[in-house]
Amino acid sequence: MDLNRLSVNTATLGEVPIKEAVDLLARAQVPAIGPWRHDLGPVGATGAARLIRDAGLQVSGLCRGGFFTKDQYGNRGDNHRAVDEALEIGAKCLVVVSGGLLQGSKSLPFSHEAIRNGLALLLDYARPLGMPIAIEPLHPMYAADRCAINTLGHALELCDGLGPGIGVAIDAYHLWWDRNLAQDIEKAGKQQLITAYHVCDWLVPTQHLLLDRGLMGEGVIDLKNLSQMVGGAGYSGFVEVEIFSERLWSKPPERIVQEVMDAFTFYV
Amino acid sequence: MDLNRLSVNTATLGEVPIKEAVDLLARAQVPAIGPWRHDLGPVGATGAARLIRDAGLQVSGLCRGGFFTKDQYGNRGDNHRAVDEALEIGAKCLVVVSGGLLQGSKSLPFSHEAIRNGLALLLDYARPLGMPIAIEPLHPMYAADRCAINTLGHALELCDGLGPGIGVAIDAYHLWWDRNLAQDIEKAGKQQLITAYHVCDWLVPTQHLLLDRGLMGEGVIDLKNLSQMVGGAGYSGFVEVEIFSERLWSKPPERIVQEVMDAFTFYV
Repeated sequence: MDLNRLSVNTATLGEVPIKEAVDLLARAQVPAIGPWRHDLGPVGATGAARLIRDAGLQVSGLCRGGFFTKDQYGNRGDNHRAVDEALEIGAKCLVVVSGGLLQGSKSLPFSHEAIRNGLALLLDYARPLGMPIAIEPLHPMYAADRCAINTLGHALELCDGLGPGIGVAIDAYHLWWDRNLAQDIEKAGKQQLITAYHVCDWLVPTQHLLLDRGLMGEGVIDLKNLSQMVGGAGYSGFVEVEIFSERLWSKPPERIVQEVMDAFTFYV
Repeated sequence: MDLNRLSVNTATLGEVPIKEAVDLLARAQVPAIGPWRHDLGPVGATGAARLIRDAGLQVSGLCRGGFFTKDQYGNRGDNHRAVDEALEIGAKCLVVVSGGLLQGSKSLPFSHEAIRNGLALLLDYARPLGMPIAIEPLHPMYAADRCAINTLGHALELCDGLGPGIGVAIDAYHLWWDRNLAQDIEKAGKQQLITAYHVCDWLVPTQHLLLDRGLMGEGVIDLKNLSQMVGGAGYSGFVEVEIFSERLWSKPPERIVQEVMDAFTFYV
C-alpha cells in the first residue's frame, strides 16, 4: 500500500504524549494520525487540533464513541463530547464501538435494540454537525463486554435503518475470520458505507485477548487480498494502523513508526 | 435441566485418570461421560470401554477427531483411529473439530474446501461403521489454528452436501454471541442434525483464550434460553458439560462434580 494512504493510530505507539506522536509522524512524513480521545492528554482536543494542524497532518478518525449499553441514556453525554472533539480536531469520522450486553442482562436481542436506539440518538446530534459516524464491528470475543456487533453484516443492517451520516469501520483484526466478509464488503461499497479501514494482524498463537495483536505480515490475515476487496468496493481513504501490542510497545516509538511503515508497504 | 440429561466431559475434571473419573461420576449418579481421547490414558479405548460399561455409564460423545487441514490427507490415519475408538467405547458420536488454516496458507476459502474434503473422506469411513460424526463449530478466536468453521450456519452448510451420518455439536461457549443462532438451531432441528449439545459459560473478563471458561451461571450466556431453543428443536440427548478452567481444576475432583451438578440443575 502506498504510504500516502497511511494513518497511524496513537494506540500503536504506546504511551506517547500527543505532541511527541505528532512530531514523530510528521518527521517520518506519515500523512495522517488516528488519535484515541484519552491520548489527546492535557492539551485536550483544542490543543491537539493545533498541534496536528501545525504539523500538516490529517486525522483519519477519532477513537472512540459508543458504548450505548452502558446506561439507559445510551452514554449520551460522553458521546456528544466525542462528536465535539472529532469536529475540533478535524477527524474524517468518529469511530464508534457499540458496547456489549446491557448492564445485568444476558439478552443479546435487547442489547442490540439498545444499541440501535443509542446510535439513532447519537446520529441526531452528529448529523446536523456534519460529523460522520463509523460503526466498528469488533471480534466476537468482545461481544459480552465491548461490542455486541460482531460482523460487518450486522453493522450494515444497523446502517440500513439509520442513515445518512453513518457508515462502517472495517478492521481486519476483528473481521478476517468471517466467511461472509467478501460479500459484505461488496455490499458496503455499493451503498458507499465504507468510512474507515483499519489494519493489523492476527498472531498464532495469540497470548492475550487485548494486547497481543501483530504488525501486518506477522500473522495469518491475507491483508493484501482484503485491501484489494476494500479498494475494489470503492474505498480510497486512509488506511489506519491500529495495533495493541505489549511486544511492540517495548520498542522506541521511532522504531515502531519505521516498522509500521515497512510493514504497510510490503504487506497491506 | 434434569440431572438424567447430564454428561460430564473429562476435560472438566482436570488431570484425572479415567478410572477415577468413571468412579467419581458413577458414585455421583451422573448418567454419562464425554471422554477426550488422550484422557483414555494407558488403558486405551478397550480398557476405558470396560470401565465405563462396568460402571453403568453411557458415553455422550468422544472428543475428538478432525483437524482436516493438518496435512494433505485430511489427517486420515488419526481420524480413522478416532472412529474406531468411538465405536469401542460406545460413544453416541465422534465430535470433530475442523482445523484452522491450511499449513502455510492465509486462504480461508482454500481451507474451507480442504475441510469439506477431509470431512467427506472421514464420512466414507465412519458411515458404514455406524458412527455419527458431530461437527463442532468453534468460536472465531480459534479460526486460525483450531477451527475455521465458526458458526452453526457454516456447519449446517457443510452437513448439507455430506449427509447422512453427519450432524452438529452445538456448544454454548463457542456460539452464544451469534445473532443468527436461534434461526440456525431451528433449521438444524428441522433437518434432525443436532447430534450433541455442550454447555459452560463465558466469563467477563475472560483472562485466557483457552483455559478460562466458566461454570454455568458464572458468566453471561443465557443458557436456559439456549437449552429451550435446542430442546424446542427436538434435541433430547445428553447435555455435556465441558469446561476448561485452571480455576476449576484447582479444586478436588469430587468438588468439581458437585459444583457441575448444582450449576446444571439451576442454570442450564
